[in-house]
Amino acid sequence: MNKPRIRIIMIKANARYFSTSVSSFFNKDLIVTTKPSVKPNFDGAKLGFGTIATDHMVNIDHDGNHGWKSPEIIPFAPIQMHPFSSTLHYGLCCFEGMKAFRGKDGSIRLFRPMENMKRFLGSNLRLAFPEFDPTELLKVIEEFVKIERNWIPNHDAGSLYIRPVAFSMTDVLGVHRAPTTKIMVMACPVGAYFDGKINLSVYENYWRGSPKSAAAYKIGANYAPTVLIGDELAKNGYSQAVWVYNDCFLESGATNLFFVIENAPGKYEIITHPLDGSILPGVIRDSIINLTPDLFPEIKITQKPFSISEFIELHNQNKVKEIFVSGTASVIGEVHSLEIRGKVYPMNYQPGEKLICSTIKKYLLDIQFGVIPHSYSHVVQ
Amino acid sequence: MNKPRIRIIMIKANARYFSTSVSSFFNKDLIVTTKPSVKPNFDGAKLGFGTIATDHMVNIDHDGNHGWKSPEIIPFAPIQMHPFSSTLHYGLCCFEGMKAFRGKDGSIRLFRPMENMKRFLGSNLRLAFPEFDPTELLKVIEEFVKIERNWIPNHDAGSLYIRPVAFSMTDVLGVHRAPTTKIMVMACPVGAYFDGKINLSVYENYWRGSPKSAAAYKIGANYAPTVLIGDELAKNGYSQAVWVYNDCFLESGATNLFFVIENAPGKYEIITHPLDGSILPGVIRDSIINLTPDLFPEIKITQKPFSISEFIELHNQNKVKEIFVSGTASVIGEVHSLEIRGKVYPMNYQPGEKLICSTIKKYLLDIQFGVIPHSYSHVVQ
Repeated sequence: MNKPRIRIIMIKANARYFSTSVSSFFNKDLIVTTKPSVKPNFDGAKLGFGTIATDHMVNIDHDGNHGWKSPEIIPFAPIQMHPFSSTLHYGLCCFEGMKAFRGKDGSIRLFRPMENMKRFLGSNLRLAFPEFDPTELLKVIEEFVKIERNWIPNHDAGSLYIRPVAFSMTDVLGVHRAPTTKIMVMACPVGAYFDGKINLSVYENYWRGSPKSAAAYKIGANYAPTVLIGDELAKNGYSQAVWVYNDCFLESGATNLFFVIENAPGKYEIITHPLDGSILPGVIRDSIINLTPDLFPEIKITQKPFSISEFIELHNQNKVKEIFVSGTASVIGEVHSLEIRGKVYPMNYQPGEKLICSTIKKYLLDIQFGVIPHSYSHVVQ
Repeated sequence: MNKPRIRIIMIKANARYFSTSVSSFFNKDLIVTTKPSVKPNFDGAKLGFGTIATDHMVNIDHDGNHGWKSPEIIPFAPIQMHPFSSTLHYGLCCFEGMKAFRGKDGSIRLFRPMENMKRFLGSNLRLAFPEFDPTELLKVIEEFVKIERNWIPNHDAGSLYIRPVAFSMTDVLGVHRAPTTKIMVMACPVGAYFDGKINLSVYENYWRGSPKSAAAYKIGANYAPTVLIGDELAKNGYSQAVWVYNDCFLESGATNLFFVIENAPGKYEIITHPLDGSILPGVIRDSIINLTPDLFPEIKITQKPFSISEFIELHNQNKVKEIFVSGTASVIGEVHSLEIRGKVYPMNYQPGEKLICSTIKKYLLDIQFGVIPHSYSHVVQ
């Protein structure tokens, strides 16, 4: 166990800079306990999402009296929780989603991992969990990825999904700052392709986000109330809900949402909701905004609220050319229809049509797998 | 393990009747494993909230393939969770709060326990957790209370707080209906008195509730985002936040909120927000509304949105006579000041003044402890 040390860090978490003296765990104190290596046995083509855990997990404990303990990599195993834990009662948890990619060159890469680290720190702070140095967490995750490298599917078969999570480990009931917390990182191999057409349904009876919500943070509280809604929509054949606020589209399920509008013949605009606190600041979302000009310098990218009535009018004029969602799991997925107030608005993509979103997706995948060298790609090994 | 049986039940959960065929666990299948009895050792006068667990806990498991397992009462012990559990990642949990009271007559009583059972069922369903018969859960809880009866403080020292909780026990990542879930019930002795003056602060940067929120359900997701806010307010000397929506007061912390207005000399009105989906339908709240006419038949009780500007105007006219909060833990607590946008609005209660809310509180406590016989009081033993 190392004593916590104080360092000054300057980081940008959820678009707000803060400077403060924080205590953090450090990668140099990492304690690794591996279990005997077993050759991973999975069929990349048949992988679902989150069904197979790799052999190990990261564990980093904090308690208010002693600060951070040494980070550990230990065999994957159940964890013990006190029945009074405020995770179980009040949902005090947050998470991240990222991926490790095995390139054709054999290298292992992460995609903009510091963005996930900074967002994770922001989510932790939103729950009054302790501060840490996000660069140290990234170093620990890199060590973890190296240990689990045999679990990373080949280039054409998928990637290794990496799940940092933090939660309360209290033993006292009551809605208070958690005196003991835990960060864990786990991983599971996931397949390459998201199959099935995406058909969305606008859900107006529940606000997942608003400018006065916690939707900009990746905390469990944003997800729990959506399970029932997703389940009900799935029974009716929809892939996900589209969340709205003030009659404007926010996100879809747990993904960001984009519309491609043809304002005049050949003049395209990509519209997505701004970062006003009502949506998650997605890493893929940000990458789409930053990278699309490389591919389509003439396309205008606009972050603004986009309303249901504007959509209906533009759809009636045949000006809505594409709808797509973005997230770490699926990267980009084109949407085939949008149901609003009982009416289905189809997207009439033509067979073989080269969609703008497909071109962006290929570019992102090429960067992720190292086909195209890019500063967004972070080589681990 | 019993096979799930199908029964038709008609219950009222969150004010909506539903009729459906449900499978439930049954109290008659209860398996009790007690540990050797140790005389509880606690000082009622020094009890905090939720620090001491009793000897046992209720455990009821459900999985999608086999349905409900037999309910159990087992020794209080840590529980094992799969690291992929959607409780830890997405905050899939809900809870209840109730109390067992030891009367001067030696009897053990619960207060309107079916209200908690129905609300708990409603919270479970809101998370897509499985249905159960709430009358069966109450029977199990009654058995639990009997086993833990030595843990119930004496009449003048406090009560036994009872905490039902339900959460996901999945082993697959992903935001989906939980295929395995758990209901637990635990208990802790709590002191009789809430000490310290309550000073509230109106918090306008986060909407805990709105008509399109999940605030009417006692799910963890409503509580996790409030911890940081409560912590920050406490540093500034406030007891709790007052949540607002559309410039109207909703609740305070995790308690319902009431205002006593003197509309004309001697003509009083009690105002509290209506059950429009933005607040928790509190059992004490409902009891205050139902019982106050017994004590003050001339006082008008109004469930309506009450705005910040109305409050300020009435406070300036010296017409706001009392502010009070209500909840299971504190029953009723009078509020000494309300801070709004940097200005503190004090409540100038006079020493020895007999407050309306104190009279209501005494009536409620007398019913809870069996001093006054009432249908709201449910004798266990």
